[in-house]
Amino acid sequence: MASALEWGSRGRQFKSVRPDQIILNMQTVNIGLIGFGTIGKGVVKILCNKQALLSEKLGVNLALKFVCDQDITTSRGVSLEKDILTTDVSKVLCDPQIQVVIELIGGIQPAKDFILKALENKKYVITANKALLAECGDEIFAAAYANGVDVYFEASVGGGIPVIKALREGLISNKVKSIYSIINGTSNYILSMMSQQGCDFKTSLKQAQDKGYAEKDPDLDINGLDSAHKIAILSRMCFRQKIEFKDIFVQGISNIALDDIRYAEELEFKIKLLAIAKQNEEYLDVRVHPAFLPKKHLLSNVEGVFNAVFINTDLAGEMLFYGRGAGELPTASAVVSDFCDIVKRLSLPQALDQQDVDLKARIKKVSTITDISTRYYIRFLAVDEPGVLAKIANILGRLRISIHSVMQKGRRQSGVPIVMMTHKAKEADVQEALIQMNSLNVIKAAPVVIRIEDGE
Amino acid sequence: MASALEWGSRGRQFKSVRPDQIILNMQTVNIGLIGFGTIGKGVVKILCNKQALLSEKLGVNLALKFVCDQDITTSRGVSLEKDILTTDVSKVLCDPQIQVVIELIGGIQPAKDFILKALENKKYVITANKALLAECGDEIFAAAYANGVDVYFEASVGGGIPVIKALREGLISNKVKSIYSIINGTSNYILSMMSQQGCDFKTSLKQAQDKGYAEKDPDLDINGLDSAHKIAILSRMCFRQKIEFKDIFVQGISNIALDDIRYAEELEFKIKLLAIAKQNEEYLDVRVHPAFLPKKHLLSNVEGVFNAVFINTDLAGEMLFYGRGAGELPTASAVVSDFCDIVKRLSLPQALDQQDVDLKARIKKVSTITDISTRYYIRFLAVDEPGVLAKIANILGRLRISIHSVMQKGRRQSGVPIVMMTHKAKEADVQEALIQMNSLNVIKAAPVVIRIEDGE
Repeated sequence: MASALEWGSRGRQFKSVRPDQIILNMQTVNIGLIGFGTIGKGVVKILCNKQALLSEKLGVNLALKFVCDQDITTSRGVSLEKDILTTDVSKVLCDPQIQVVIELIGGIQPAKDFILKALENKKYVITANKALLAECGDEIFAAAYANGVDVYFEASVGGGIPVIKALREGLISNKVKSIYSIINGTSNYILSMMSQQGCDFKTSLKQAQDKGYAEKDPDLDINGLDSAHKIAILSRMCFRQKIEFKDIFVQGISNIALDDIRYAEELEFKIKLLAIAKQNEEYLDVRVHPAFLPKKHLLSNVEGVFNAVFINTDLAGEMLFYGRGAGELPTASAVVSDFCDIVKRLSLPQALDQQDVDLKARIKKVSTITDISTRYYIRFLAVDEPGVLAKIANILGRLRISIHSVMQKGRRQSGVPIVMMTHKAKEADVQEALIQMNSLNVIKAAPVVIRIEDGE
Repeated sequence: MASALEWGSRGRQFKSVRPDQIILNMQTVNIGLIGFGTIGKGVVKILCNKQALLSEKLGVNLALKFVCDQDITTSRGVSLEKDILTTDVSKVLCDPQIQVVIELIGGIQPAKDFILKALENKKYVITANKALLAECGDEIFAAAYANGVDVYFEASVGGGIPVIKALREGLISNKVKSIYSIINGTSNYILSMMSQQGCDFKTSLKQAQDKGYAEKDPDLDINGLDSAHKIAILSRMCFRQKIEFKDIFVQGISNIALDDIRYAEELEFKIKLLAIAKQNEEYLDVRVHPAFLPKKHLLSNVEGVFNAVFINTDLAGEMLFYGRGAGELPTASAVVSDFCDIVKRLSLPQALDQQDVDLKARIKKVSTITDISTRYYIRFLAVDEPGVLAKIANILGRLRISIHSVMQKGRRQSGVPIVMMTHKAKEADVQEALIQMNSLNVIKAAPVVIRIEDGE
């Protein structure tokens, strides 16, 4: 059982942690990391840079005891003490002080053996390994169960989007009726390029590779297998049914022609590589293939390397979770969230209150609306005579508000409606401009002002 | 501390729970519910209908010991034993067997006194009360902290969307840079009606009221105050700063004219009531007002009563959480997820493994692709001569595949590209049709087929 786990003494700290960040009365959780590639590097960065924040939130010290990789000489741009790095995986798997093993090497073997060994040694495991969980999930989870520990896998689907947590905990009482998802960023990037730039499949793939969005060997991504691994994981979790991975129908995007993309658009559709999972009385309907999707569907607006999971449940209804499905820091963020869940599970009585109550010293002023700068839409009704615009422009110019566009919207008996868009300006200046405009006798009613936000 | 809480003996079960659903060796968690309105009714339904599922997932029995409301005579359409219903709130607040109090009456008082009393009596509290948390959050959370218990509030923002959990746990190591959100369904419904149907504000509001999307007194929704309460809660949690609620700039939608909506559309914008929170070095920028938002932004596609929260963080990047922001079952689903988190916190050693490992008896067949029925896009290149379509239509007709549309796309040297859309048909029939079409000498290359999905 979890509670029977022994807490090791404090392990080695990162080189970059200042002594004042180590809180001596706290428990320490020791971590072993296997796989020092892109995601592994991201995890090390986060554990290092956010050590103080995480310790405060969790009430424990975090110590990365070993980082294991075949290659420990190439620089990753993060500084680790030398004896943290090792090529000997048994140091990670068998060290009794290590409570949590993070597996980030991917692929079935040797990852599977490493994870089974870690579980046998009563270590909690975090993995981003979708192939392994999709193809051998039953065996892995059974081993965890038998050993009284658990396997966490937020990073295996949807990168930085906390969709596993949402399904497992946030929607715990819901029955999932259907999942429609875009969970392979490479394929979605290629389809977006074809649709937006009119490039053909080969050119789009080349571009994805040049930008680092596709591997040199992009097969797993474009043939749909990566999406299939992920939908198998989601299905197992949502439907609480064993899934034979080989039963999932998988079709990739390499046969999508530019013509099909164009015809789809004309018919008010988009073509997306969808991973679908639904259940009915008789069977589970789990499959991956390119599909026409109505343009107005939210998933149709998911472009580039972004991922999104659209879920329909019996209680909460339709939901969409959207975000970056890959990349160093988004994926590492998911790994670290799993780690924090494990720490809370191991040390709840020690963990601090979740609501961050102690904000006494943390009072930051909320800005007043006149502090902000943004773009503005201004509409007003003017008398229909020459020189009106000059008067308005004068006021705005004096207040350093520059005009992006002006449109006269027809002519009404009551006057001429004028619509202006400004460049970025200070709210205080705009408010002053409105007062001055209001006092002009050429303006027939108080101007309407609406702020413009880019949402970024 | 949580662990010091005493476990009460098993409380009263729901009338509808069958004896075989009560597992006698399990701990029981006793719940007291205050407020038997729409959400309260939803919570009772879920606890009742999903009792077996939740007990299996959590490893404890759940018992609703008291449901307190001023009105306990009006039928809610759920059957409860008579002595569960009470008008005496002290029964809930002071019963030593009750470990979790759910407050669903809303408003500042008497909700605040009830919650403070429950906390003082070392009970965990779940609330959907956004006004109370926004205006008195510091006091409430401090009381929880002082008493070694906690307050959960997933249902206070975004209804059924697990956005609080995502921010607190899923993104635990992230620094939130900005939040742009649509978190008032009533306002968004009105703006959608104005934009899509061309109704003016008053007509749209009336329609929202007729459909039950707006209260008889819709002020809190349309004047932006409800959104402000919610963004205050998100800001406090994300920025870990005290927020003085009165400092938040709030402007509602009642002054938005149909003209502004139209001009916005012409300029490639939508008007949305946005709740915004950003932080920079000097101050927090927290505000609620209608804003122009570029049409291509994901939030611009959020229509009707749906809510969405768009977040940008330092690690995981941009994310969107979308779903039903109100309503009986979505909101109750959030309340129940909080409850399950508390149960796990109280009883972790007893809680079952999170991965639902024991699926031995649960093998449902995954359908083969030929089992499905959907609509199809079929493209082929035909020789340029009369009668081609008749031959194709014949094949499809014999296989009961009905054609929705046919388009001839220009004329090429190699032949005439023809694009067909079918109505819903069986995949097996479509595959047979393709084989037969392929054998026609009027078809010049194997047809391309793409499935059409509505994503619903």
